[in-house]
Amino acid sequence: VEEARTAERVGALLAEAGAILISGGLGGVMSASCKGAAGRGGQTIGLLPGWDRTDGNPYLTVSLPTGLHELRNGLVIGTSDGAIAIGGGWGTLSEVALAMRTGKPLVAIRSWVVTSPEGPQQALSVVDTPEEAVREVLSAIKAKPQ
Amino acid sequence: VEEARTAERVGALLAEAGAILISGGLGGVMSASCKGAAGRGGQTIGLLPGWDRTDGNPYLTVSLPTGLHELRNGLVIGTSDGAIAIGGGWGTLSEVALAMRTGKPLVAIRSWVVTSPEGPQQALSVVDTPEEAVREVLSAIKAKPQ
Amino acid sequence: VEEARTAERVGALLAEAGAILISGGLGGVMSASCKGAAGRGGQTIGLLPGWDRTDGNPYLTVSLPTGLHELRNGLVIGTSDGAIAIGGGWGTLSEVALAMRTGKPLVAIRSWVVTSPEGPQQALSVVDTPEEAVREVLSAIKAKPQ
Amino acid sequence: VEEARTAERVGALLAEAGAILISGGLGGVMSASCKGAAGRGGQTIGLLPGWDRTDGNPYLTVSLPTGLHELRNGLVIGTSDGAIAIGGGWGTLSEVALAMRTGKPLVAIRSWVVTSPEGPQQALSVVDTPEEAVREVLSAIKAKPQ
Repeated sequence: VEEARTAERVGALLAEAGAILISGGLGGVMSASCKGAAGRGGQTIGLLPGWDRTDGNPYLTVSLPTGLHELRNGLVIGTSDGAIAIGGGWGTLSEVALAMRTGKPLVAIRSWVVTSPEGPQQALSVVDTPEEAVREVLSAIKAKPQ
Repeated sequence: VEEARTAERVGALLAEAGAILISGGLGGVMSASCKGAAGRGGQTIGLLPGWDRTDGNPYLTVSLPTGLHELRNGLVIGTSDGAIAIGGGWGTLSEVALAMRTGKPLVAIRSWVVTSPEGPQQALSVVDTPEEAVREVLSAIKAKPQ
Repeated sequence: VEEARTAERVGALLAEAGAILISGGLGGVMSASCKGAAGRGGQTIGLLPGWDRTDGNPYLTVSLPTGLHELRNGLVIGTSDGAIAIGGGWGTLSEVALAMRTGKPLVAIRSWVVTSPEGPQQALSVVDTPEEAVREVLSAIKAKPQ
Repeated sequence: VEEARTAERVGALLAEAGAILISGGLGGVMSASCKGAAGRGGQTIGLLPGWDRTDGNPYLTVSLPTGLHELRNGLVIGTSDGAIAIGGGWGTLSEVALAMRTGKPLVAIRSWVVTSPEGPQQALSVVDTPEEAVREVLSAIKAKPQ
């Protein structure tokens, strides 16, 4: 519940900043963040794992059934300028890893802590509040050389 | 170096067990495990990120340029019956996450330690030696209902 | 030029009907159809082959860089309820084939004519005007059992 | 039946030439060509649409369940140096289109005839016998600048 509240607030802040929200389009954290964004008039794109458009949560402005299943996680990261990881799903961890691998700005909030054989990964930014998460990811995106 | 020795030994043991080795097909841990497998006459399939077949390491029996880039990590897991994670690359972490997400037997050796918001993931099997890694993943694959 | 005019008119008619236009997001027929749709306030989603969002044409409301290259053609079809093929590019032909293969309503206008070893494919609907194309594909989508 | 005989002969000739045969790995033309190749000791790689390795035909030396469904057609072309199209399936047509789009040598035998709005596509090589098909595609591959 706390997680859903965090996600909804992140979505609302992203919409207020004029950002488009791309997610896996299903329930839980995905649905909560879309609800927050849609409530502020934001665009919400869902990249669904299956082929049924109606699997998307009710807060999507565009529901795209990819049929790519878990590989659509890579598409969520690939089509985004940056990412905010919320919660502890394995799918979320795969997105964290791919964002780090491809150099996309990533902020984690109430999410995975990962420790490589060389030690904790300082590169992964961890914050406590939706406000910090959104501010940090947007400024990292702006700071990136285009 | 220790990591490469571990990977080479894992490859050799897999080939001795008659397993086909599927990897990302490039250098480092991938190349070392293929070297070990090929040295025992094993099949080694490389799912390359780009389009150039010659990017594959010299120990591949089949080099497949997918052009899927990081999404080929999902293909490495999807086409395998189980996985052994070695080392601390972000690509490896994405494969760990996808294996857990899709319920594939996975063993980690000198690799990532991951902690979800709910605590350390006991589900992820961590071992110390190539012998344990190969024995454990093969017996988990055999135990799986088909 | 005639082809671009056809595409722009198709885009405009789709937007008027309230449809979301999904395309490969680049120039030529893709750009012309997006121009037509955007001019009527329609949503235009571009599934780009590469990773650079700015490769998208200026009429996209959502530009999604997939990094899937030619495989994104399959995504254009997979995320759509039906398709209108315009023009004679090989990429268009791959989309025609995948739409037929997956049973998506498809209408061709100034596009490929294909003949299988068993003879011309009557299943492929060919029309002469944008009005017919849009009317036919929308009614075929509505007629489909959900 | 004639089609299967053609496919089996093509597979046998490819194996004799030392080529690795990559296909969609299922039945019909795919199975017949693998049977021909395997009978001469050739390698046969199957890129299956689903996730079940046992869906592959019995003549595969490596069965790879991709879970990519129709998008695996693009992977069949992308991982190959050239292609021989046999028969009139829509999946085959998508592979013909993608091979032409990406500049891979392609020979068609008892397969699709395609006519763009600009006229018949002379670029597509059509032959009558397995011997011509294999000879032509292999020499086109060798002639290609690497």
